[in-house]
Amino acid sequence: MLSITDYLSENSEILKKELFELLRIPSISAQTEHEEDCRKTAEWLRDYFLKIGFSSQLFPVSTNHPMVYAESPFIPGAKTLLIYGHYDVQPVDPLELWETAPFEPVEKDGYLYGRGTSDDKGPLFTHIAAAKFWMSQENRPHLNVKFILEGDEESSGSATEIFVREHTDLLSCDYLALSDSTQFAPGCPSITCGLRGVAAYELTLFGPRQDLHSGMFGGAVTNPCTILMEILGEMHDSDRRITIPGFYDAVKRLSPEDEEQLRFLPFDDAAFFESAGVSGGIGEADMSVLERITTRPTFDINGITGGYQGEGGKTIIPAKASAKFTFRLVPNQDPEWLTAALSHWLEERIPEGIEMKLDVEGTSGGYLLDLDRPCMKAAAHAMEFGFGRSPFFVREGGSIPIVAAFSKLLTPNVMLLAYSQKTDNAHGPNEHFCLTDFWRGIKTNVKLWQELTALD
Amino acid sequence: MLSITDYLSENSEILKKELFELLRIPSISAQTEHEEDCRKTAEWLRDYFLKIGFSSQLFPVSTNHPMVYAESPFIPGAKTLLIYGHYDVQPVDPLELWETAPFEPVEKDGYLYGRGTSDDKGPLFTHIAAAKFWMSQENRPHLNVKFILEGDEESSGSATEIFVREHTDLLSCDYLALSDSTQFAPGCPSITCGLRGVAAYELTLFGPRQDLHSGMFGGAVTNPCTILMEILGEMHDSDRRITIPGFYDAVKRLSPEDEEQLRFLPFDDAAFFESAGVSGGIGEADMSVLERITTRPTFDINGITGGYQGEGGKTIIPAKASAKFTFRLVPNQDPEWLTAALSHWLEERIPEGIEMKLDVEGTSGGYLLDLDRPCMKAAAHAMEFGFGRSPFFVREGGSIPIVAAFSKLLTPNVMLLAYSQKTDNAHGPNEHFCLTDFWRGIKTNVKLWQELTALD
Repeated sequence: MLSITDYLSENSEILKKELFELLRIPSISAQTEHEEDCRKTAEWLRDYFLKIGFSSQLFPVSTNHPMVYAESPFIPGAKTLLIYGHYDVQPVDPLELWETAPFEPVEKDGYLYGRGTSDDKGPLFTHIAAAKFWMSQENRPHLNVKFILEGDEESSGSATEIFVREHTDLLSCDYLALSDSTQFAPGCPSITCGLRGVAAYELTLFGPRQDLHSGMFGGAVTNPCTILMEILGEMHDSDRRITIPGFYDAVKRLSPEDEEQLRFLPFDDAAFFESAGVSGGIGEADMSVLERITTRPTFDINGITGGYQGEGGKTIIPAKASAKFTFRLVPNQDPEWLTAALSHWLEERIPEGIEMKLDVEGTSGGYLLDLDRPCMKAAAHAMEFGFGRSPFFVREGGSIPIVAAFSKLLTPNVMLLAYSQKTDNAHGPNEHFCLTDFWRGIKTNVKLWQELTALD
Repeated sequence: MLSITDYLSENSEILKKELFELLRIPSISAQTEHEEDCRKTAEWLRDYFLKIGFSSQLFPVSTNHPMVYAESPFIPGAKTLLIYGHYDVQPVDPLELWETAPFEPVEKDGYLYGRGTSDDKGPLFTHIAAAKFWMSQENRPHLNVKFILEGDEESSGSATEIFVREHTDLLSCDYLALSDSTQFAPGCPSITCGLRGVAAYELTLFGPRQDLHSGMFGGAVTNPCTILMEILGEMHDSDRRITIPGFYDAVKRLSPEDEEQLRFLPFDDAAFFESAGVSGGIGEADMSVLERITTRPTFDINGITGGYQGEGGKTIIPAKASAKFTFRLVPNQDPEWLTAALSHWLEERIPEGIEMKLDVEGTSGGYLLDLDRPCMKAAAHAMEFGFGRSPFFVREGGSIPIVAAFSKLLTPNVMLLAYSQKTDNAHGPNEHFCLTDFWRGIKTNVKLWQELTALD
């Protein structure tokens, strides 16, 4: 049996080639024109599992982005590890800011560039590569391994949670691992112990039947663009706190231990803002930058559209205007409560001449992990082996909607092994993934399977 | 010599056919891809003037939308009437709301449908038809007539004002007539005695270098979409007054006579809102609807854009956001003062992490007409002849930027003869023009030329 280090020396080119194949399929789940690409990606994964000796099949879900299921040769009495990932990716616009085509992955200066390299095809493939290693060297892992790979993570659908609810027997497991979070910083291997939830909405305001001449009607007909600004402009107070009454009722202040842990993390405000391309920023009063981005709820407008947006000007009162926005939620905040409270808050502000429509695009609660479980020690050992230093336990500002459901429905032993970097431009142009992190991830996974077997 | 009534009976089909030719050329001045169409429209007009026996030529202007100049056979000692119009039209989006193609004009139920039918190719053509009438019946009008037709009115350019300043000899005149305003209501022939000015801007806010993941950066990196909402959401106070300090300093309250004149006009709030497709609207406190749309300055957002606007959601902090907006100004308000005050007002509100850019898209002051001039009596007589009832003198909410310049540089005898209706959807989809108003306009113009000759 080759060591994983020697195996990677011999197989690095073929593994990269395989990952590139996966990256080339534009599996953008939010855009219906890519439905067929999502299906192709699922089929590619199924065929890959079959080729390495796993059994695998696709399950239909409501969105037409099939669920990929795979499992290793069964070992009676052995514990079971379930690995989760998602094969769908974010939309790519603004396309003009990409330096290379998003779906023609390239390797440059030790990084892989392309949509999905970091979120989540690259990190996901580290687990698949671990499966390939164990199958090629030992004909099977020494524990039972299952994979469940979804195609709806980036479109906020509820298809996966429904699937998990309906397939708790198929997915039954003792441990669960996933890599869809980020290292605290380069060289800081991390196990993610907290996630923010997310509630995504689209608000559309309807004004006049059609665009009107702003000279003839301006001053008396209510302008939906103007009102959209006025209403959403009221979402923050002067302390940058969200003004929906009761919004903070369920938000806990950090314990002294939590605050100590935050202080222990190597975080540099200036470097953080530099990575965003700004000299600084504003946020909730009396909070550090790190608190703001990991432990506090937020409101962000993701996109606005309305009226004339072409070249030059057009002196109209537009017929409608809309905004897509998201709240990040912390554990204990209830997305359903928020939807009701938001809807009420908006309705109170709609003036005469405007009709509103609020679409809920998707919601999920936040999550906090229990660090005292034996599997967390195994995960820390594996990560120390893969990265050469022991990991940090960190709360992350992003959301992985399915994690709370996994924890409730399948097993509390959920391990979020972070391989990506915050600076990978996960949802933006020129998304990339560090090749070193890719190899470290594979080594960590191979070691984790050994460590979990030893727990028995 | 045929009477104009008999002439129209014989020539209505050919006049409509000629107007349709003019309407078919998509002369959208705000969009550079239509530059060639603007040139074609100018050439069509020049050739038409030459065909009916006027001399005519094109003058280049900075925008590549040539100025059309034409004049009737010269009569020494006779007074000169200058007629102004614009051959450019507004953009057509949202195209999906048009029931017929904007540049394939059709006649339906007594109306002409198509972009430019009402603003301004249709009304402009009533003056050209008057020229054709006089040339065919008398070989020339009995006074000197000049035409100046621009191609930049709908894109807020300053090319025409520059041209007028540079050609005051060529354009020298005793009277000036134009038809680019609207009748107070159907069956209410109107001479427009007041216009609002307009100041058009585009504000762009720049945030992070590129779109960022709102989970990883949300709460600490300033969001340009959110800030755009907050800043422009502050433009109105709770009385719907504009909050830029000093904005109302130059705005005069109406005199008792002005108020009396407003009350005399047959205006129905409910019908006004119904024409806009709304049940009501909000506006400046303590003002009637008619005051709000004709005698008061306003602020309207014409279009907003930023971040992700496609299908589904994208959890980003966008790199930038922008809004196009216009102020309508009343006489005495100085657009240059406003630009400086607005810029200062905005800069005061830009928080850390945001850079702003304010583009001035075009400005012009408001205008109030002197009703005591003899030519106004001639215009009223002509309109009574054309429409069968004496006209109203009304202030209009829209803007015709060049009118103030004409008045200052050429002649104070400016006659704004309104043939279009407010309900023609001038800047929106399904723009139309009532055929009856078209014939009435031609009759009015023919009579006006006679009346003005008689003034000598």
